[in-house]
Amino acid sequence: MFELIDSEVFLAYSTYGTISYGTIVVLKMLFMGPLTDYFRVTPKAFVSLEDARAHGAKDEETKNKYMQIDPSVEHVKRCHQNDLENIVPFMGIGLLYTLTGPDLSTALLHFRIFAGSRIFHSIAYLVPLPQPSRGLSCLVGMGVTFSMAYRVLKIVMHL
Amino acid sequence: MFELIDSEVFLAYSTYGTISYGTIVVLKMLFMGPLTDYFRVTPKAFVSLEDARAHGAKDEETKNKYMQIDPSVEHVKRCHQNDLENIVPFMGIGLLYTLTGPDLSTALLHFRIFAGSRIFHSIAYLVPLPQPSRGLSCLVGMGVTFSMAYRVLKIVMHL
Amino acid sequence: MFELIDSEVFLAYSTYGTISYGTIVVLKMLFMGPLTDYFRVTPKAFVSLEDARAHGAKDEETKNKYMQIDPSVEHVKRCHQNDLENIVPFMGIGLLYTLTGPDLSTALLHFRIFAGSRIFHSIAYLVPLPQPSRGLSCLVGMGVTFSMAYRVLKIVMHL
Repeated sequence: MFELIDSEVFLAYSTYGTISYGTIVVLKMLFMGPLTDYFRVTPKAFVSLEDARAHGAKDEETKNKYMQIDPSVEHVKRCHQNDLENIVPFMGIGLLYTLTGPDLSTALLHFRIFAGSRIFHSIAYLVPLPQPSRGLSCLVGMGVTFSMAYRVLKIVMHL
Repeated sequence: MFELIDSEVFLAYSTYGTISYGTIVVLKMLFMGPLTDYFRVTPKAFVSLEDARAHGAKDEETKNKYMQIDPSVEHVKRCHQNDLENIVPFMGIGLLYTLTGPDLSTALLHFRIFAGSRIFHSIAYLVPLPQPSRGLSCLVGMGVTFSMAYRVLKIVMHL
Repeated sequence: MFELIDSEVFLAYSTYGTISYGTIVVLKMLFMGPLTDYFRVTPKAFVSLEDARAHGAKDEETKNKYMQIDPSVEHVKRCHQNDLENIVPFMGIGLLYTLTGPDLSTALLHFRIFAGSRIFHSIAYLVPLPQPSRGLSCLVGMGVTFSMAYRVLKIVMHL
């Protein structure tokens, strides 16, 4: 009886613990959007004509000047795209992984390492830190997703 | 007894209500793909050589003519990308949010505002309506996701 | 009693069966990232300055040479983007679909066709096979997602 309650508390805590890390990672990804907008507004590097107009480009010449490709905007956009490419698989496989009932410490370890690697990846991308810091942090995050996928597939195959 | 049934019905209805809005938003996002293809086929603005060939580009000259960058294709693609960047976080956090057991009216309000803001965002992007209509609708959608994430994190922290 | 157990086993198997196909599709999508990096490293076609530096671009001239746009890199990136645009809606609607309790064979059929169509799509994109093989495989995958969304919305509307 006591064991049952304990394991339920553990299960709940495990889920709640992983939920907070998952939420933080997804919020970090969502935050990349406004960050790109900030990098667009500061040097006035827009890609849609209506944006250039809204920021005061009245005549043809100013319009062309405001519709430029800015290296730092492209840099933030690539960082955002890398987030999408890595956090989306983590969301799907992380959900299936928590459904397999992993033990608390292992699940938290996976989610903590992933959250840490993605936050470090963004810092390494945006500063930018010299390579291979960015590449390695991306690989660590992928490793976490593969480790969770391995457990999911192993359990599914045994049933 | 009666209360229990009622709350279950409510919970079910809440979940079903949010499910329909979630499905509509995701279908809207999926629909952007064929829309981009439509914008590609009409002015024959392809990006892959095999597509230009499939649409009748036999000689070298026609091939180069068909492999152009068309502003309206790029416009639809950016709209699609913005959908991915905002609807994906909504999917993840919206799932966690419904698991926290919010009450019916609040949950429906969140999902309705999000679905409405994203549909309006696509219209504002594709017409295009003058700014800041597109920017504001994007911000409203983000606000919904942040509001749901706030509830999820608040409940997780208290446990 | 026996029926109940059987249906539970069926439900479990159905879920597990779909989980394995879902995991495979998501892993395939995640794998596109390292594949893009491979296509970048071989002809040395980088997009970030720190990557060119890490691969031995010391002077200004080599840097510019390494910062080129390579058609095959762009090709893999488009394939990856198409995965994101189609597998993300599948993840969301596929989850809701399994929650509606479809019968085993129908659910497995949906997930198998989707997994097959996406794997064939990547092959058709990367070889590349002549059109319309790529376009048709993409349409088949979309059809599966629409079919699942139809069931979800039908059940939600009836309640």
